[in-house]
Amino acid sequence: MTPLRLPPAESRICSPDRLLPIEPAARAIARRLYDSVATLPIISPHGHTDPRWYAENEPFADPARLFVIPDHYVFRMLYSQGVPMEALGIAAKDGSPVETDARKIWRLFAANYHLLRATPTRLWLDHAFAALFGLDERLSAANADAAYERVAAALETPAYRPRALFETFDIEVIATTEGALDDLQWHARIAASGWTGRVVTTYRPDAVVDPDFEGFRDNVRRLGDITGEDTATWTGYLAAHRKRRAFFKSHGATASDHGHASARTANLGPVEVERLFHRIVTGDAGADEADLFRGQMLTEMARMSLDDGLVLQIHPGSRRNHNCQVHGRFGRDMGADIPGPTDYVGALKPLLDAFGNEPGLTIILFTLDETAYSRELAPLAGHYPALRLGPPWWFYDSVEGMKRFKDLAIETAGFYNTVGFNDDTRAFPSIPARHDVARRVDCGHLAELVLTGRLDEDEAGELAHDLAYGLAKKAYRL
Amino acid sequence: MTPLRLPPAESRICSPDRLLPIEPAARAIARRLYDSVATLPIISPHGHTDPRWYAENEPFADPARLFVIPDHYVFRMLYSQGVPMEALGIAAKDGSPVETDARKIWRLFAANYHLLRATPTRLWLDHAFAALFGLDERLSAANADAAYERVAAALETPAYRPRALFETFDIEVIATTEGALDDLQWHARIAASGWTGRVVTTYRPDAVVDPDFEGFRDNVRRLGDITGEDTATWTGYLAAHRKRRAFFKSHGATASDHGHASARTANLGPVEVERLFHRIVTGDAGADEADLFRGQMLTEMARMSLDDGLVLQIHPGSRRNHNCQVHGRFGRDMGADIPGPTDYVGALKPLLDAFGNEPGLTIILFTLDETAYSRELAPLAGHYPALRLGPPWWFYDSVEGMKRFKDLAIETAGFYNTVGFNDDTRAFPSIPARHDVARRVDCGHLAELVLTGRLDEDEAGELAHDLAYGLAKKAYRL
Amino acid sequence: MTPLRLPPAESRICSPDRLLPIEPAARAIARRLYDSVATLPIISPHGHTDPRWYAENEPFADPARLFVIPDHYVFRMLYSQGVPMEALGIAAKDGSPVETDARKIWRLFAANYHLLRATPTRLWLDHAFAALFGLDERLSAANADAAYERVAAALETPAYRPRALFETFDIEVIATTEGALDDLQWHARIAASGWTGRVVTTYRPDAVVDPDFEGFRDNVRRLGDITGEDTATWTGYLAAHRKRRAFFKSHGATASDHGHASARTANLGPVEVERLFHRIVTGDAGADEADLFRGQMLTEMARMSLDDGLVLQIHPGSRRNHNCQVHGRFGRDMGADIPGPTDYVGALKPLLDAFGNEPGLTIILFTLDETAYSRELAPLAGHYPALRLGPPWWFYDSVEGMKRFKDLAIETAGFYNTVGFNDDTRAFPSIPARHDVARRVDCGHLAELVLTGRLDEDEAGELAHDLAYGLAKKAYRL
Repeated sequence: MTPLRLPPAESRICSPDRLLPIEPAARAIARRLYDSVATLPIISPHGHTDPRWYAENEPFADPARLFVIPDHYVFRMLYSQGVPMEALGIAAKDGSPVETDARKIWRLFAANYHLLRATPTRLWLDHAFAALFGLDERLSAANADAAYERVAAALETPAYRPRALFETFDIEVIATTEGALDDLQWHARIAASGWTGRVVTTYRPDAVVDPDFEGFRDNVRRLGDITGEDTATWTGYLAAHRKRRAFFKSHGATASDHGHASARTANLGPVEVERLFHRIVTGDAGADEADLFRGQMLTEMARMSLDDGLVLQIHPGSRRNHNCQVHGRFGRDMGADIPGPTDYVGALKPLLDAFGNEPGLTIILFTLDETAYSRELAPLAGHYPALRLGPPWWFYDSVEGMKRFKDLAIETAGFYNTVGFNDDTRAFPSIPARHDVARRVDCGHLAELVLTGRLDEDEAGELAHDLAYGLAKKAYRL
Repeated sequence: MTPLRLPPAESRICSPDRLLPIEPAARAIARRLYDSVATLPIISPHGHTDPRWYAENEPFADPARLFVIPDHYVFRMLYSQGVPMEALGIAAKDGSPVETDARKIWRLFAANYHLLRATPTRLWLDHAFAALFGLDERLSAANADAAYERVAAALETPAYRPRALFETFDIEVIATTEGALDDLQWHARIAASGWTGRVVTTYRPDAVVDPDFEGFRDNVRRLGDITGEDTATWTGYLAAHRKRRAFFKSHGATASDHGHASARTANLGPVEVERLFHRIVTGDAGADEADLFRGQMLTEMARMSLDDGLVLQIHPGSRRNHNCQVHGRFGRDMGADIPGPTDYVGALKPLLDAFGNEPGLTIILFTLDETAYSRELAPLAGHYPALRLGPPWWFYDSVEGMKRFKDLAIETAGFYNTVGFNDDTRAFPSIPARHDVARRVDCGHLAELVLTGRLDEDEAGELAHDLAYGLAKKAYRL
Repeated sequence: MTPLRLPPAESRICSPDRLLPIEPAARAIARRLYDSVATLPIISPHGHTDPRWYAENEPFADPARLFVIPDHYVFRMLYSQGVPMEALGIAAKDGSPVETDARKIWRLFAANYHLLRATPTRLWLDHAFAALFGLDERLSAANADAAYERVAAALETPAYRPRALFETFDIEVIATTEGALDDLQWHARIAASGWTGRVVTTYRPDAVVDPDFEGFRDNVRRLGDITGEDTATWTGYLAAHRKRRAFFKSHGATASDHGHASARTANLGPVEVERLFHRIVTGDAGADEADLFRGQMLTEMARMSLDDGLVLQIHPGSRRNHNCQVHGRFGRDMGADIPGPTDYVGALKPLLDAFGNEPGLTIILFTLDETAYSRELAPLAGHYPALRLGPPWWFYDSVEGMKRFKDLAIETAGFYNTVGFNDDTRAFPSIPARHDVARRVDCGHLAELVLTGRLDEDEAGELAHDLAYGLAKKAYRL
């Protein structure tokens, strides 16, 4: 087979000037900028791909298991229009039968492809279909079988195995995300294999930090077992975290990540914090104490970061598992996590009072509440040395979402308090598409700044490179 | 007289490419799309025109009583700049004298027409003036009398009676909104008249559902009288609703509508709900119980919808009658209803836990809090089968308001979780203008998606038709 | 020397069409509109320049003390990227040594000039560098010394003294802001000097109105001393305010200004208010009583405005001194004031119930919470005769911030419920640039309304003039 080339040879479903500004003069500048960054390697500092893929390097199973079943962006949209999740092959927790015929699932997906019109998912899929599999027609019921066969045949070839795709995608480094109790065996196997692809882990301790997490108390005990620390005591619990962070660092981690319901932080005195911890580990704590503990742990993590240099990422504001029926039947991460208003100014104050002025510390803030961009996040990041703004996250990781972020945040925070792009995905084949979308939107934004006299073109060129590559590498210390 | 043609022959005050994108290539695509939908019939699934107009088919009184006195969009703007409401002919509750000379009111309106610059009201008025009355100059103090005479003369002719205008407007179906106690006599008379215009009602039970509504307890008693049910009991009260819904359905209703201060819902157990109802009907309930009851009733209405198929519309978030002096002197709906922050994610959870996964149920959500579009409403509608997003409402029913809705909601919710356009108006002559504005803005948006490679033009053509006609018809089951 | 000309002869760092729309037809209209207002005199109705400058007319010290040290927009951005405030010459409260060498500070600033890319600060600086000092290259480490010398040399010449610049800037009137206890000596000296520049004061009583203000109780006592009123009593306290307002009016004041944490207002009965005042002045009041008192005082100020005609400005929503370390070490106004959500609809109701319908009263509302523009502020200002909307403030006083204000507020509030532009600055050399940015953005917005058929070009011309000049003059009664 011919080698894959990315970004894609342009096809009927992937126009060469897509997402660039419409006005011809702006488009011309944007294209020059884009051409200068289109083929830069991918820095993927935060995401959820499975390290096992890179360790085992087994073929992906079939088109439905690659593109539909694991992608809640796809199946939630079909579900919202009445397509049962079972018909899309989503496994039920009780083991009751769901569709397993990949071709049937793919046909149902193809017949409903119009539901994705104007969504970023559609952009990502079209890009992958065109660039990776050479599909040249918009997916539909009519061409579903032909597309299925083409994708399925490709997946059986060596060029479509995880490591080959990793190289095709020109990924310089990718971060995965593992829980604090993970043994990182896949990262170890990747390291031992001699393969040169750089896959690093990220320390995500929610399961041992959030008292409301399923199995929290058991998790804390296991944390003790793994580390040989007495996690029934505050001192031992902190020491266990320090050991795990060191272990994760030894497998490449440069960051930790924290997904809390709010951005609340706390910085209690030693007596108070021990008392709180005791109530937490004995299971006596109420909801507000649990929340306070999560907040305290963000400050503790920042304190550890001052020592070990891990970058602290905060992803707050998701109301997880909002749909109780879907949660009960299919479990977590099934497209039913809904954002809500998120306070930063009050919530982060204890942490910022303690460490906000540390130039050696990097805290990256994300949001699911866009109202915070201009009102809170940009003013905070435009002042505190420790703060940086993460890119648009989740529902905002879209063309218009990215534009709004630029318009709302940059004038106050500046470009250099942002950290470039995260793909934040478990959808492996979408990674080049996601970075390509971000690069195009960034270059369009820069072109408009140039044409309105707000930036010189040489500055725009520098910024295009920084946004596509340099800022992420620097902020995440990769 | 010559027959009216709408959309209008273009005039000096209504440019043919108005509201289409500025960039020539985008404008060309937008115009092609617009031309394909400009003359589609009007589906008006939610609004406040008076069914008596269609039943009696009497001429409209005069230009001031058609365009100024009933339109709080117009008079609130003049009032905000110091024009007394009395001078505009707004009737005071105490019967104290107000201006009654239509020509004087019209002159005052015309002299202040500049206050409406860049508002949607100005667009609607210019469209009606040009298309319906052939006015060819911007209204001003100088041409006020000439315009008055032209409009007044037209109103005396048969072509300007309500039914003729209905036909001229090419309205395929219009929904009015009536309270639960309404006898629907005008709908009955329309039906009996043999006229073929389709005018359906909508079940709006606020007065018997909201304990804070004026005369609530009397209203509930009247509900009992009308239905022969014992509305002092919870069972009887629910049965009475069911009967009224059936009665409304027999007059064409396909939807209910609910205007609550918040989107709060509740789903109490049988004992709790009976206890709450008892406190409500005996007048013992406090403010929070009243709010809880409203929330419970949304869930009850959804439960009834599962049986009778009525679509459930929720219009939350208005702080009604904010201006106590204006309310005291002139009553409700006088331009002083002010929005506030509105929670959906927590508020709707009880209702969604109960019925959110029902593909046979349609709940249409509106908002006066734009921050909810991307943060809450689009994620909810992009997941729950029962949810759809209503179009921009009230202050957002404007060119920029509609654009923001598209930019903020579509990437996450998709087009197919929206329901096309509602004019939601009592301003009859503005109806074609309002639909025309929405069609133009939609086609402009679609053209930009095409030119940026996010949509093929054939898809845009399909969507333009859906947004102008198909989505509303389907969502409202019309 | 040759006379300064503003707006600037265009230079390499200040393109002639900057900030105008990109699309050529829109740019052409925008340019026509802009040309008609570019050289209008400056009305600066709200700001923080130092009246002493105009009174003494001494030269500005050096480039660093003119452009860097006093401008928290500049130094907060460098601080956010790890540059110590001491190195930028910001004086510490404890008198510990900071950099004093202006040239070193300037070099550090120049070497970090890229941090300001795409911020309004960059636009203002480039404009001042080009127009005032003839700099023709983007500031950088390489040209820092040359730029320093050019600016420093100019500052020694008569043309760069405050009064000469005032005239060069073509300022018709500028308002400064003084505390209630200020003796207004500089205003008196300006008046006595025979210089014809019009510099008026503004009554800003926060220090004697806000119980949480440093030294509040002493301040209230001093207010009594100055006015000869017994400010230990409610009656005397109010009388003292009335006297100070009259004194400020005698020095040109046409407005008062109020910077509160929230927009809360109150209108207590006479007994309640006396009781509250007693607790406040005796220091017995808690946090909520302090907040209530601030709210009560807004209503009292409105009541006084009805008598003396001062315009009431409310600047709510800043969480002042968020960074406790920076506050402790450097004091107030050091770039660490962070906005938060701000309610208007509930908060203003007591004040509006009392005086919202007074057409003779002008209350100008500002916000640091953009979500309020379309949801609360525009609906309020589009209804209440007493309300007007101030221009985008602080973090929103930027190109995109101004565009959002137009898009979010004008369709509901109309242009005539806005008050034109405020520069709100203490950065004297940036004043022409700030007004120029606003005029350009306004003309771009108007041009787009014209090209989309929402406004005729003659109307746009009128509005361009009003926005640049007339609305501010009228609203502030200047």
